[in-house]
Amino acid sequence: MRDQYYEELDHIVDELVQLTGTVRRAVSDATIALLEADGPVAEKVIEGDKAVVEKAEAIEERALLILATQQPVATDLRQLIATLRMLADLQRMGALSVHVAKIARRRMPEVAVPASLHPTIVAMAKVADSMIDSASSIVASRDVAAAMRLEEEDDEMDRLRKDLFRSLLGDEWEHGVESAVDIALLGRYYERIGDHAVSMARRVVYLVTGQMT
Amino acid sequence: MRDQYYEELDHIVDELVQLTGTVRRAVSDATIALLEADGPVAEKVIEGDKAVVEKAEAIEERALLILATQQPVATDLRQLIATLRMLADLQRMGALSVHVAKIARRRMPEVAVPASLHPTIVAMAKVADSMIDSASSIVASRDVAAAMRLEEEDDEMDRLRKDLFRSLLGDEWEHGVESAVDIALLGRYYERIGDHAVSMARRVVYLVTGQMT
Repeated sequence: MRDQYYEELDHIVDELVQLTGTVRRAVSDATIALLEADGPVAEKVIEGDKAVVEKAEAIEERALLILATQQPVATDLRQLIATLRMLADLQRMGALSVHVAKIARRRMPEVAVPASLHPTIVAMAKVADSMIDSASSIVASRDVAAAMRLEEEDDEMDRLRKDLFRSLLGDEWEHGVESAVDIALLGRYYERIGDHAVSMARRVVYLVTGQMT
Repeated sequence: MRDQYYEELDHIVDELVQLTGTVRRAVSDATIALLEADGPVAEKVIEGDKAVVEKAEAIEERALLILATQQPVATDLRQLIATLRMLADLQRMGALSVHVAKIARRRMPEVAVPASLHPTIVAMAKVADSMIDSASSIVASRDVAAAMRLEEEDDEMDRLRKDLFRSLLGDEWEHGVESAVDIALLGRYYERIGDHAVSMARRVVYLVTGQMT
């Protein structure tokens, strides 16, 4: 009975790591859709989000069932509570990748991002990808040191977002209002994706150390 | 001992309702700061958010303590889990009101919102205020019917946000890129504030009916 209980807890962690991988691909696909104005990839992201939501809800139900029937205490309890929160983070990251894909789709066949800003968006997407990857490792291995590194990556993300806004608001902006609005929102979406990765990592730190960062 | 336990649970609901009131005022103050370019009110919102975070963390700690020590089951367990999630919603709403106040502050002494868009922003702020008020009543009274009405208010919010974007992207936009970026972000912030109110209501519905909407 207790063995089965621990198996269930481990299984939930595995599924959380797997779902993080799915969300990571969604973010990366959304960036491809955005920078290459690739319609089928955009649709894949938008349609694929249903599976993310369903999977998150399935894991959530299992976590709640364990909470209700096994009455875990101490670390196990904290782990399940952290799981519920990380599922919320993952669902938001999925929703944000859909927002990116929808901006890409709305501007097709044009590319929503002016060529001069491709490097910044590529850099933001790369940092986001690395942050989600770090979050996944942290969830899998409870590596608190990696969680600290993630905070540094988040600083880099903030710096990139500020660069993006400086380009938008500089005198040399020549891509019109619609494009500026898209870029402002895209900057915000990638930044929020990074924030959610940080939030996941903080949940693990709290789990391991009992301290909120 | 059990009496004290139920008192604690009730006390947490009271504190949640109180914190919702604080956040509601922050959103409303942020709108005043925005539309009247009122510096002291903007500072009040920005500084005041620390108290929101601290209060949310204090309630969270108490909820976790009850979870760990009292091992609640069934409805009590669901209520505490719902509380943790609603606290996350409230913290996000507080952070979003800070974002609104910071846009207001950055453009001072100018008003960040062009006069022609004041009515739309006023309407969005009014819907947001009403949604937070509804969420608060729903938390206090577990009024599931009110939760359904809140979804309708959310539709109104979406409609207003679309109006706002239509103004931005129409040919007659004459307020420049910086203003367009501000308005796009503001539209997003009010929309997300509404989303979090809906999310709070859904948590109560789930609590009462056991069904996710």
